[in-house]
Amino acid sequence: MAIMQLTIIPLGTRTPGVGQYVAEIEQALQREGVRHELTDMGTIIEGAPQELLALAARLHALSFAHGVQRVVTQIMLDERRDKDVKLGDKTAAVQARLA
Amino acid sequence: MAIMQLTIIPLGTRTPGVGQYVAEIEQALQREGVRHELTDMGTIIEGAPQELLALAARLHALSFAHGVQRVVTQIMLDERRDKDVKLGDKTAAVQARLA
Amino acid sequence: MAIMQLTIIPLGTRTPGVGQYVAEIEQALQREGVRHELTDMGTIIEGAPQELLALAARLHALSFAHGVQRVVTQIMLDERRDKDVKLGDKTAAVQARLA
Amino acid sequence: MAIMQLTIIPLGTRTPGVGQYVAEIEQALQREGVRHELTDMGTIIEGAPQELLALAARLHALSFAHGVQRVVTQIMLDERRDKDVKLGDKTAAVQARLA
Repeated sequence: MAIMQLTIIPLGTRTPGVGQYVAEIEQALQREGVRHELTDMGTIIEGAPQELLALAARLHALSFAHGVQRVVTQIMLDERRDKDVKLGDKTAAVQARLA
Repeated sequence: MAIMQLTIIPLGTRTPGVGQYVAEIEQALQREGVRHELTDMGTIIEGAPQELLALAARLHALSFAHGVQRVVTQIMLDERRDKDVKLGDKTAAVQARLA
Repeated sequence: MAIMQLTIIPLGTRTPGVGQYVAEIEQALQREGVRHELTDMGTIIEGAPQELLALAARLHALSFAHGVQRVVTQIMLDERRDKDVKLGDKTAAVQARLA
Repeated sequence: MAIMQLTIIPLGTRTPGVGQYVAEIEQALQREGVRHELTDMGTIIEGAPQELLALAARLHALSFAHGVQRVVTQIMLDERRDKDVKLGDKTAAVQARLA
């Protein structure tokens, strides 16, 4: 199991807001039933590394909508093989250290 | 006002876990009284762009502790000048679209 | 055609140097015959978006070698559909502006 | 000494091309006389960590030109304290391994 953060940035939209594109990604993830969390800087998704990157390719392609001609997608993939890491585990571990 | 995500990765630690370093950053941010949010992939902080990057430099330097000799720090800075964006605004705007 | 930058960071290695892992990625790319360029901050690769992310998954998996138990992989994918962008085109366009 | 990669993405521009903004950053770096290298995915700059992030703040601010109202800046900062790393050292070390 791995954790991936995905940030999709459509370029050449006429207005600086891109919430519409983020909302479409959120809806796609809800439809696919994938465990994820929306943050102010991207979407964090849990899964197997290979499947996460295949999902990233689909979400990236999805953002070419409404006339968008260029999309820059930022991905951070974090995989551990010494233990199983799930969504929320890392923040919980830090909170436990601070308690 | 801008939003910055900071992910600090110490290299050459003997074990793959880096929660200790993340916890130290969290404590520093609490001491400084900066509005922030911890996620599974980094820390999201609100502030003026120049101050955020100066803070990033201090947090990056802080991670050279416990014998760490190399730190890779990943930063994403998002600034809008057409409206004031605060921590939580972007996720709230997406949730409103989905409601 | 798209351009992808890939930066692979193995965690919990005994020494801070990771050139060995970068060299293995370089060799894999040469074997696969993929057009790419090595920079000080990652490897930039040219290809179709879906294939680039599938390649990223293979290179990420490759880095779990020599006892590495955690790998953080950073990916930036840039795709344009209004024109075909190949490796070197973006730097050439900027140089042309400055000439 | 550290190495920083900087990628500046202006949002809400009318066309998907952003070479104009990259060229302005290139000119600013040449004026400042900072050692750097332009790649297809960003600009790699050599310097002291604190100065590099202060420079990043100036270059980020510079991109709010020509009516741009939002800029997302991506930064990767890599600092080693066990040895001095300069621009070109990392790629040279990998090439040496492959020779």
